[in-house]
Amino acid sequence: MGSSTGPRPRGEECVSRITKEEVAELTQRELPWAIWMGVAVEEIGNGHCRVHMPHKEENLRPGGTVSGPAMMGLADYSLYVAVLSSIGRVELAVTSQLSINFLRKPRPGDIIADCRMIKVGRRLAYGEVFLYSEGREADGPVAHVTGTYAIPEDRGV
Amino acid sequence: MGSSTGPRPRGEECVSRITKEEVAELTQRELPWAIWMGVAVEEIGNGHCRVHMPHKEENLRPGGTVSGPAMMGLADYSLYVAVLSSIGRVELAVTSQLSINFLRKPRPGDIIADCRMIKVGRRLAYGEVFLYSEGREADGPVAHVTGTYAIPEDRGV
Amino acid sequence: MGSSTGPRPRGEECVSRITKEEVAELTQRELPWAIWMGVAVEEIGNGHCRVHMPHKEENLRPGGTVSGPAMMGLADYSLYVAVLSSIGRVELAVTSQLSINFLRKPRPGDIIADCRMIKVGRRLAYGEVFLYSEGREADGPVAHVTGTYAIPEDRGV
Amino acid sequence: MGSSTGPRPRGEECVSRITKEEVAELTQRELPWAIWMGVAVEEIGNGHCRVHMPHKEENLRPGGTVSGPAMMGLADYSLYVAVLSSIGRVELAVTSQLSINFLRKPRPGDIIADCRMIKVGRRLAYGEVFLYSEGREADGPVAHVTGTYAIPEDRGV
Repeated sequence: MGSSTGPRPRGEECVSRITKEEVAELTQRELPWAIWMGVAVEEIGNGHCRVHMPHKEENLRPGGTVSGPAMMGLADYSLYVAVLSSIGRVELAVTSQLSINFLRKPRPGDIIADCRMIKVGRRLAYGEVFLYSEGREADGPVAHVTGTYAIPEDRGV
Repeated sequence: MGSSTGPRPRGEECVSRITKEEVAELTQRELPWAIWMGVAVEEIGNGHCRVHMPHKEENLRPGGTVSGPAMMGLADYSLYVAVLSSIGRVELAVTSQLSINFLRKPRPGDIIADCRMIKVGRRLAYGEVFLYSEGREADGPVAHVTGTYAIPEDRGV
Repeated sequence: MGSSTGPRPRGEECVSRITKEEVAELTQRELPWAIWMGVAVEEIGNGHCRVHMPHKEENLRPGGTVSGPAMMGLADYSLYVAVLSSIGRVELAVTSQLSINFLRKPRPGDIIADCRMIKVGRRLAYGEVFLYSEGREADGPVAHVTGTYAIPEDRGV
Repeated sequence: MGSSTGPRPRGEECVSRITKEEVAELTQRELPWAIWMGVAVEEIGNGHCRVHMPHKEENLRPGGTVSGPAMMGLADYSLYVAVLSSIGRVELAVTSQLSINFLRKPRPGDIIADCRMIKVGRRLAYGEVFLYSEGREADGPVAHVTGTYAIPEDRGV
């Protein structure tokens, strides 16, 4: 196994190893937080995905901007989906490290996560996520995230 | 201004510049996410705090462990409280960077955040958080977080 | 000011605000470490650059691979050059945060850094760097770096 | 195996699994970069160490402060020593992730690294390092580092 990409190619030729419907079913069954947030996968391919998080009053913070935890949760979920798109339905893959840089205050509104894996190895998968205010992508990302997932030895599949 | 600590002193002699009651009032009014999570400040001093997050079914993830977003949110909230304990009620302080390393799978159960500032400057405040499964502190932290808050020029106070 | 890019556009239409020759002169005068490493800018544009680090026996570590410090130094230098390509010759810009993920053991040999800024603000500039073993770019990056530079209020220019 | 510490205990009662002399011999033989920097272990115990880096003109950068790469290299070396102090002479342990926050500009002069492991597992070891300007520890750290080392399956011992 080893889908790995540099900054340019995005491998859209390769199909995801999990479908949008399987992600939705898994989310429904196992990820109540994501359900509560209303996140939904818009696009999925091998090693990348685009995820939408709708506006919610509960996610605001002082200053009227989207809260950090909401954006971190969206990024973590996107990485989980992108890992599964690369290696198939290994539900027990877990975040081992996540790092977020907040770059601009997002307007209250929907957030889009654009995620791709940078390295998928046997034991660890590493990727990055750009978060955007929907409809304002041209302003540049509101946050940038990198994260590592640990893949269990017994993949349970 | 400049409360700054190395790894040893914890400055419990200095009092917090915001009270537990003020934090609770601010949280109630401005941080619906934290209310929903049920987080509560247990201890607060100048540049440090201890925050409790109760068990919630909604925070679990595949494998029956506490989800990453719940722990990241708790850490971010703890840093916010510790920043305000250092500089007073500057509500518009915002996270600029947060990094989490997950070290052990927490048991389903309450989580404790032990947070302290490492450097509080005029424009940036940097600190660290150790997260523990409550009652199992001796097993070592379940996660370690570092984070930076940006302090607005007009502190609004 | 505000050159900011998402994951796709690379803005090669915009010219760098510092020339390769100016970078070489500044490096010669002020950055003995970079001279000792033999790093050289191969390409530069507004908000991005490509930097070459030649093989050196002194940079190896146990296992015969290129040492971490050599790669971190190369990445930090690349970010410095990319910041200056965006804002001009602000020599006192300093790293405030740098994070590196090592993805593959590089063969002993030359290393290439491909760096671009993600956000250039008034006070902070944030970018990413992909490091490759030269001639083996198709294997994917050997490391990925994100970093923030602080821009002094008095830019000294 | 599992030396793990929270923010308080420092385990000085436990002896290092590698001696200062063994570290010096290994450094001499395998880490030319560290020799060139003149780093020396001052104290070592199980899961922690204190390392000294002397002043060198070559490590300065614009503004007359110690360069980032020198501090990153010192931190990485300290983590390597602290990992070996916990698990013994596993020379092929390699950095998988390192993150540094620069907190104050160090004066030109010697730098001290105070490093301790936070979690030592079977496959990964995670720790933190506080860097100080020697003789100015009371001013607080000049930088804070966290890092993860990957421990090879075949420890080669």
